[in-house]
Amino acid sequence: MERQSYLVQMNGNGGSGVMHHGNGIHHVNVNGSLYPAKAKSRRQRWEVKPSDMANNTLNPIRAIVDGMKLTPNPDKPMIALSIGDPTVFGNLPTDETVRQALKDAIDSEKYNGYAPSVGYLKSRQAVANFYSCPEAPLEAEDVILTSGCSQAIDLAISVLCNPGDNILVPCPGFSLYKTLAVSLGIEVKLYNLLPEKSWEADLQHMESLIDERTSCLIVTNPSNPCGSVFSKEHLQKILNVASRHCVPILADEIYTDLVRCTSPSMASLSSSVPILSCGGLAKRWLVPGWRMGWILIHDRNNIFGSEIRQGLVKLSQRILGACSVVQGALEGILNAPQSFYNNTISFLKSNSQICFNELSTVPGLTPIMPSGAMYLMVGIDMGHFPDFKNDVDFTEALVTEQSVFCLPASAFEFPNYFRIVVTVPEHLMVEACGRIREFCQRHYRPRSSDSSDSNDLDQ
Amino acid sequence: MERQSYLVQMNGNGGSGVMHHGNGIHHVNVNGSLYPAKAKSRRQRWEVKPSDMANNTLNPIRAIVDGMKLTPNPDKPMIALSIGDPTVFGNLPTDETVRQALKDAIDSEKYNGYAPSVGYLKSRQAVANFYSCPEAPLEAEDVILTSGCSQAIDLAISVLCNPGDNILVPCPGFSLYKTLAVSLGIEVKLYNLLPEKSWEADLQHMESLIDERTSCLIVTNPSNPCGSVFSKEHLQKILNVASRHCVPILADEIYTDLVRCTSPSMASLSSSVPILSCGGLAKRWLVPGWRMGWILIHDRNNIFGSEIRQGLVKLSQRILGACSVVQGALEGILNAPQSFYNNTISFLKSNSQICFNELSTVPGLTPIMPSGAMYLMVGIDMGHFPDFKNDVDFTEALVTEQSVFCLPASAFEFPNYFRIVVTVPEHLMVEACGRIREFCQRHYRPRSSDSSDSNDLDQ
Ligand SMILES: Cc1ncc(COP(=O)(O)O)c(C=O)c1O
Ligand SMILES: Cc1ncc(COP(=O)(O)O)c(C=O)c1O
Repeated sequence: MERQSYLVQMNGNGGSGVMHHGNGIHHVNVNGSLYPAKAKSRRQRWEVKPSDMANNTLNPIRAIVDGMKLTPNPDKPMIALSIGDPTVFGNLPTDETVRQALKDAIDSEKYNGYAPSVGYLKSRQAVANFYSCPEAPLEAEDVILTSGCSQAIDLAISVLCNPGDNILVPCPGFSLYKTLAVSLGIEVKLYNLLPEKSWEADLQHMESLIDERTSCLIVTNPSNPCGSVFSKEHLQKILNVASRHCVPILADEIYTDLVRCTSPSMASLSSSVPILSCGGLAKRWLVPGWRMGWILIHDRNNIFGSEIRQGLVKLSQRILGACSVVQGALEGILNAPQSFYNNTISFLKSNSQICFNELSTVPGLTPIMPSGAMYLMVGIDMGHFPDFKNDVDFTEALVTEQSVFCLPASAFEFPNYFRIVVTVPEHLMVEACGRIREFCQRHYRPRSSDSSDSNDLDQ
Repeated sequence: MERQSYLVQMNGNGGSGVMHHGNGIHHVNVNGSLYPAKAKSRRQRWEVKPSDMANNTLNPIRAIVDGMKLTPNPDKPMIALSIGDPTVFGNLPTDETVRQALKDAIDSEKYNGYAPSVGYLKSRQAVANFYSCPEAPLEAEDVILTSGCSQAIDLAISVLCNPGDNILVPCPGFSLYKTLAVSLGIEVKLYNLLPEKSWEADLQHMESLIDERTSCLIVTNPSNPCGSVFSKEHLQKILNVASRHCVPILADEIYTDLVRCTSPSMASLSSSVPILSCGGLAKRWLVPGWRMGWILIHDRNNIFGSEIRQGLVKLSQRILGACSVVQGALEGILNAPQSFYNNTISFLKSNSQICFNELSTVPGLTPIMPSGAMYLMVGIDMGHFPDFKNDVDFTEALVTEQSVFCLPASAFEFPNYFRIVVTVPEHLMVEACGRIREFCQRHYRPRSSDSSDSNDLDQ
């Protein structure tokens, strides 16, 4: 049987020299070759399977969304509040100076060749200048340019962690950390964020998870999906945990400055804890597709030392980093006028307020007011919505009935919440909130005192 | 001692809550925490080391070049024939239509958001249309857009191979294959290319290396560093080897069409062998910095099937792929006028010819005429150059004396050769060849019949 499929394979290759070669005797040195045949180890049939790494590259958002029946109500146009891309509705274009900087870089014809794998020195200097502050000074060599913040996170995790190590990741949190870590054989330990404390980290929980194989603590501030911004005091407490246990920090600060309050960078609060701060152009400059990110290496106590820096350089050589013309434009892009940033922030603030105010009065929902990023989390009191098993069910029905799509927070490992992206135009924000209210009013059931657990068992 | 460094560390974190906490007793649940302390497993001092993957990401070119003393002769301006970047001398600008296409994509404001991780469908379609042919038809879904050909190779190796598998790689060959594979725990087996046969593969050697854990055969055609182009017949023989042993092919075809003769794609010659063809804009369109590459999935016998395709999609979600505006410009870029391609090819042809002709008459050197890509390999008859131990020594001295830098082919695991990049302006090509001649004439020693091994031993 096996032999037959082998022959079929051979025939399928019709007319080649194969069939005349060796005449069924599986060796290749018929013509006095120097190389011994390996008849035994020859594969007899095609058997091409994806690697474990490919199989283990799991995207929880896709896993959940692909399993949902998303059939909008044909009578209502769809409003997607699900995608963390500020450009999809067209109401948040990037600034003219940003586009012009890129066109100038093209016209200069200076940026078509290979950049160094960590980026042009001039572009790294521009990022260093932009983020350097007296408490956390940066030089060009502290900056590594990457293909989006995603690659920055990939390099940071890859340089700090070996298979079998573990990393601490916020829950709810951005799913990429887990996707990358698991595919690399790194264990993920989730530390809780506390919705009742404006999504502050549960420090005792965090600390309890740390062991000798904990090689990195990820802190996302401002947060996706929560839209929360940590206070200086809270950041200091997190730094203390890291310091006590000698765990370096990966600070995902891609939403820095997309905030309605002042929030310091982690690096500005500690000179003893080594920090890789990951960021990029995606959010503040509203060009996520341009794939420009960076790692800022903060290591004033020389704990990373040259070894981690060299490790990052080596890893950057695998596929090289960001598009050279975007690098060439970087200085110009970073110098976009303050009014551009301010407009974005005040739009996000106003839309968040609208959304929060609207949903605050919807029975069964508990929106949590964000103070940064572009997200708002809403708690679902599932006890009041017996029509639905969970947040996935709930958000699926919201599409079916109202053509409004919000990501169930199960995608962030935090069930019974859903996430709203607040970058949609204001009138759609209002319309969407109205539809959510209608949906909830229809399905809301007051918790009657007699519907107890024992009753459930009777059914 | 250990205790002391721990305390020093604590003090270094001056003023934090750390020092007041637990008072030397290493537990964290002093305040009735729910979470048990893990005093035993607590790390006592900073110890941050790069991961094995970072340490194992080895770039042989850097390893060799960084070890060389490259001090040019101050009296002669440096001519670097070492860098595989066609843009460095400015004599090979990309076409105006290519630049315009990118500027149009920016102005359209349609390409600032996230593209799908495998690329915009429209852009994938443009690549499919460009490369589809009756013998190897392509649809948009057969194309995966990547951040340069490097990421295409990374994804292709990553999806096909598990740690412990092995891949077959040409020798001499492009070093990235090994860099990527080794960092992923994949073994590299080098199959010889034969300089005396215009760098054809030694098929018997290739075949002898295959075993049951061989998960991919890499074929680079046209070749870096050889500049060779395989004939249709030779490609067919390679395909037969792959077919006999059921090994899929990674065809690195980034230099396709940068040839002085017709060379078919591997996929056009076989419908039975599954092929991932990797390519990109870097060479033919002369914009390597733009980081636009692709994988063309050729699988007419459905051997990769949906699993490998899905695996590639999953891997592409790790960091997302190419810059969205370059993707948006892709159709326009691919439609650059034929004259642009023709000019590049005829320039490379003429420069190769000049270089070959010049060096053919230099005693001790054996240049091998290329027929594609942008490289030319030169053999060094080391027996005639007793001043130098090897190709690294030889090329180092060539910099010291003549300010001409060529990559020693040890960087491609092929000692006693060096590689010349033929993209330099013609007058520099001529000048460089003249200096190489002078250098060789100075160091050349006729092989005297009495300088035998036994004589060496006497000294
Ligand atoms: C917290 C967080 N980090 C990183 C990223 C990835 O950023 P980039 O698009 O630059 O890869 C995102 C994108 O949504 C994010 O929300
Ligand atoms: C044979 C070969 N493959 C792939 C690449 C990488 O191409 P890219 O710059 O698109 O990543 C190169 C670059 O020199 C190459 O020579």
